[in-house]
Amino acid sequence: MSHETATYPIDPVNRVKRLHERGAYDHATVHAILDAAALAHTSYVLDGQPYCTPTLFWREGTRLYWHGSSASRMLRHQAGGVPVCVTVSHLDSLVLARCGFNHSVDYRAVMAFGHAHQVTDLEEKERALTMMVDRFYPQRTATLRPTSRQEFKATAVMVMDIERASAKTRSKGLADDPEDQDLPIYAERIPVMTVLGQPEPCARLSPEVVRPATLAPYQAGERLDVALAAAHRLAYS
Amino acid sequence: MSHETATYPIDPVNRVKRLHERGAYDHATVHAILDAAALAHTSYVLDGQPYCTPTLFWREGTRLYWHGSSASRMLRHQAGGVPVCVTVSHLDSLVLARCGFNHSVDYRAVMAFGHAHQVTDLEEKERALTMMVDRFYPQRTATLRPTSRQEFKATAVMVMDIERASAKTRSKGLADDPEDQDLPIYAERIPVMTVLGQPEPCARLSPEVVRPATLAPYQAGERLDVALAAAHRLAYS
Repeated sequence: MSHETATYPIDPVNRVKRLHERGAYDHATVHAILDAAALAHTSYVLDGQPYCTPTLFWREGTRLYWHGSSASRMLRHQAGGVPVCVTVSHLDSLVLARCGFNHSVDYRAVMAFGHAHQVTDLEEKERALTMMVDRFYPQRTATLRPTSRQEFKATAVMVMDIERASAKTRSKGLADDPEDQDLPIYAERIPVMTVLGQPEPCARLSPEVVRPATLAPYQAGERLDVALAAAHRLAYS
Repeated sequence: MSHETATYPIDPVNRVKRLHERGAYDHATVHAILDAAALAHTSYVLDGQPYCTPTLFWREGTRLYWHGSSASRMLRHQAGGVPVCVTVSHLDSLVLARCGFNHSVDYRAVMAFGHAHQVTDLEEKERALTMMVDRFYPQRTATLRPTSRQEFKATAVMVMDIERASAKTRSKGLADDPEDQDLPIYAERIPVMTVLGQPEPCARLSPEVVRPATLAPYQAGERLDVALAAAHRLAYS
C-alpha cells in the first residue's frame, strides 16, 4: 500500500457517523489537516472527568508528539498509556443561509485516537525536542543556545501512535434548499483564515544577526496553515 | 458580587496547575475568551474512551449552548447529563526564542467544566435555535425563512451550566533568559490572527436584496474574534 493510499482502520470509534460523505480516513487527507496546524486539543479522562487541553503538537509518520512540563498533571496522567483523542480543526468560512437550519461553517478537522506514552528514551527525547522546534522552523535548533540538562529534565514529551483517525471536511459554502434559493433573503459565505502579522524581531538583536532564510514561509499576510504545511515538508524532506 | 468581579469556583478540577500566574477564574476574563470564539472543542467520555469534537457554541450568562444532529452519537450520549469539558482557544503569536526551551506561543484559552443536557423544553429550544443564529448575526433570524417542524426535530440543542472554569493566557511574547539576550541568535515574535476574507454574496441574490447593516462587524480584513465579541454584545444587549 503506497503512502498516498494508506488508510487508518475504520471501526465504531472513529467512523464518521453524521454526514458521512464528509468523512475520510486516508493518510494523505488526515495528515494534510494535521500538518497545517500548530495547535491540537488533547482529550483524556481522569477519575471519570474528561479534560480537553490545547497544546502544540506535531506529526511524524503515523505518530503525534506533544510536550509540556514534567510537573504537569495532564502529562503525568497521560504518561501511563491512557486513551487519548487528539483533535485538530481549521475554520474556513462562515455560511449565512436563507434559513437557520442551513447556517453552517466550512471546516477541516481530524480526530486521532490512540494511547499516549511519555518518551523516556533519552536519545528519542533529544530528537523529539529538536523536531519540536525544527518541525515549525526548519534547521533552527542548530542555531540556538543548546538545551541545558535542567531544561531537558523539565520538559516532558508525549507520543501517541495514531491507532484510528478520521478527517471530516465541509467546503461547499452556501447550500440552501433549492426551494429557498429565490427567496428575497440575504445569503453569503464569509471566508475565514488564520494569518501571520508582521514579524517583530527582538529589540535587542545585534545588527549582524539577520532573519534566517528558513523562516521564509513565515511572512506577514501569509496563511498560518500554508506556512506550517510548508515547514513540515521542509523539516521532514 | 457584581458581574465584573464574580468568579467561578476553584478546586482541583479547574485550578491552573502549571504557570499559575497565567490563570484566571473571573467571569469577565473567562467570558471574554469564550465570546470571541465560534468554535469550541467539547470533550466527553464514552465507554472509557475520550472524544473531542469541534463544534459551534455560544454563551448565555453562565451557560454554554451547542447543537448538532438529533441522530449524532455525541449528542445522544451527552444528553444524559454526562461530564463534559468545553475548551476554547485562540492562538495569538508564535514566539521564536534564543533556546529551544523558551520557544512558545501567546494564546488565550478557557476550559469550562459541567454536565451537558439536551434542551427538551420546546420553548427553550426554540429560543436557543434563534440565538444560535442571532448570537453570531444579530437579529438575523427574523429575516429568514422560518424553521420547519422537520428541521426543528432534526436539530438537538445541548446546554451546560458552567460549574467550573479557568482561563489561561500568555501574552508576554519573547521571554529569553537574561543571560541569553545578548547571544547572536535571531529571535522574534510573529503575530497570529484569524481574520475574515471578502464576503461572497450568493450568486442568486435578487438585486433588491442588500447586505443587512447588522452584518457590519463582518468585513474583509476584520479579526474574527473582534467581530464575534461585537456580535455577542449586540445580541445580548
